[in-house]
Amino acid sequence: MKNSVEFNKKIAVILLSGGLDSATTLALARRQGFECYAMSFRYGQRHAVELECAKKIAKYNGVAQHIIVDIDLRQIGGSALTSDIAVPKSRTLKDVSSGIPITYVPARNTIFLSFALAWAEVLGCTDIFIGTNTIDYSGYPDCRPAYIDAFENMANLATKAGVEGKRLTIHAPLINLTKGEIIRQGNKLGVDYSLTLSCYDPSPQGKACGSCDSCLLRKNGFTEEGIADPTIYND
Amino acid sequence: MKNSVEFNKKIAVILLSGGLDSATTLALARRQGFECYAMSFRYGQRHAVELECAKKIAKYNGVAQHIIVDIDLRQIGGSALTSDIAVPKSRTLKDVSSGIPITYVPARNTIFLSFALAWAEVLGCTDIFIGTNTIDYSGYPDCRPAYIDAFENMANLATKAGVEGKRLTIHAPLINLTKGEIIRQGNKLGVDYSLTLSCYDPSPQGKACGSCDSCLLRKNGFTEEGIADPTIYND
Repeated sequence: MKNSVEFNKKIAVILLSGGLDSATTLALARRQGFECYAMSFRYGQRHAVELECAKKIAKYNGVAQHIIVDIDLRQIGGSALTSDIAVPKSRTLKDVSSGIPITYVPARNTIFLSFALAWAEVLGCTDIFIGTNTIDYSGYPDCRPAYIDAFENMANLATKAGVEGKRLTIHAPLINLTKGEIIRQGNKLGVDYSLTLSCYDPSPQGKACGSCDSCLLRKNGFTEEGIADPTIYND
Repeated sequence: MKNSVEFNKKIAVILLSGGLDSATTLALARRQGFECYAMSFRYGQRHAVELECAKKIAKYNGVAQHIIVDIDLRQIGGSALTSDIAVPKSRTLKDVSSGIPITYVPARNTIFLSFALAWAEVLGCTDIFIGTNTIDYSGYPDCRPAYIDAFENMANLATKAGVEGKRLTIHAPLINLTKGEIIRQGNKLGVDYSLTLSCYDPSPQGKACGSCDSCLLRKNGFTEEGIADPTIYND
């Protein structure tokens, strides 16, 4: 006989990069009672060392399963994160919030969410979590609320679940939070930020550069909240 | 100085599986004056021999570039095409048109279109072609017109092109055609169907089984049109 609690357990697919945002998102999904299936990508990113963080975060959170999907986006290129184009350094917060920077990876969130959708369908679950946010972010088009809504709408037409009248939900719980607010929430939930890596251009050992846009936003978030940043920066 | 004709040439990304539908779609895109960039996937499909056909079709059509993207969907599973589940054989046309069969690969078209979207963005083009159709098809949810429209809507929110006010279009020129009508159109355009493979379960040498749903629909299409089917079947 199935244990009824186990039987009723809600399950969810969580996109887990190894960064601050996705670690917080995973903690929030767990807090909502979801059994979590974490999905990461080896996509030819220059900061592939983030996957070591993703593994530690997945383990720390006792996820049901963690898979790393190999997709080589270097074949497609077009971004400083997947080619030899240099990562911009030492910009101001104002620079970061104006325009789409060269670290934008074309259609990356759409590709990641598509794989999450496939896995959700195979697992028979209707909840997917993604840690995008649009307040302290790098101006990527595929982080905006209207985009997430449009993906959810498409996903419900794309799948068997949709045909059967189930409703698939894309959860983006951080979407309207500042970096500081994200860190505050995560701190309350016991997220260990020393396990996370946000840097776009870390050393091979995973030491953050301290001066890319992502390091800048992260540092600023901790400072705003008056919380000690456990990151070891290279600068 | 740039040749103005070349400069104004419209370019498009074409999803090319190596089957009858995508070969016809490529011919239609060329007819519309597009310079074509073909994209195929090695996704762990049991009929990976179709990629040899895709290469020949791409060459025959003089595409500007053909890339084969490696994504292993076996890690996700859930389909007879990417796991050890047997491919259904000797069904009737009525069987084929009722329900979603086990050959359905969860979110496959969404994943394929997402990669096409990424490539289109890097190439600076706003036209993507896909050979889905919903008349003589296998009941896959991600072949329906409402799905294609929803993907197009999402794609315009996902990308830089959308932010810049350009309009990205997903072309599905076969969507309302019967298999016979597709073959008739392709025949007029000079598509060489002997280069194509539709079978879900071919021999390692690429000989079609003759009895899976896809072979059934293909055979029926040629018969309906009274056109000789160049396929060599195993049965």
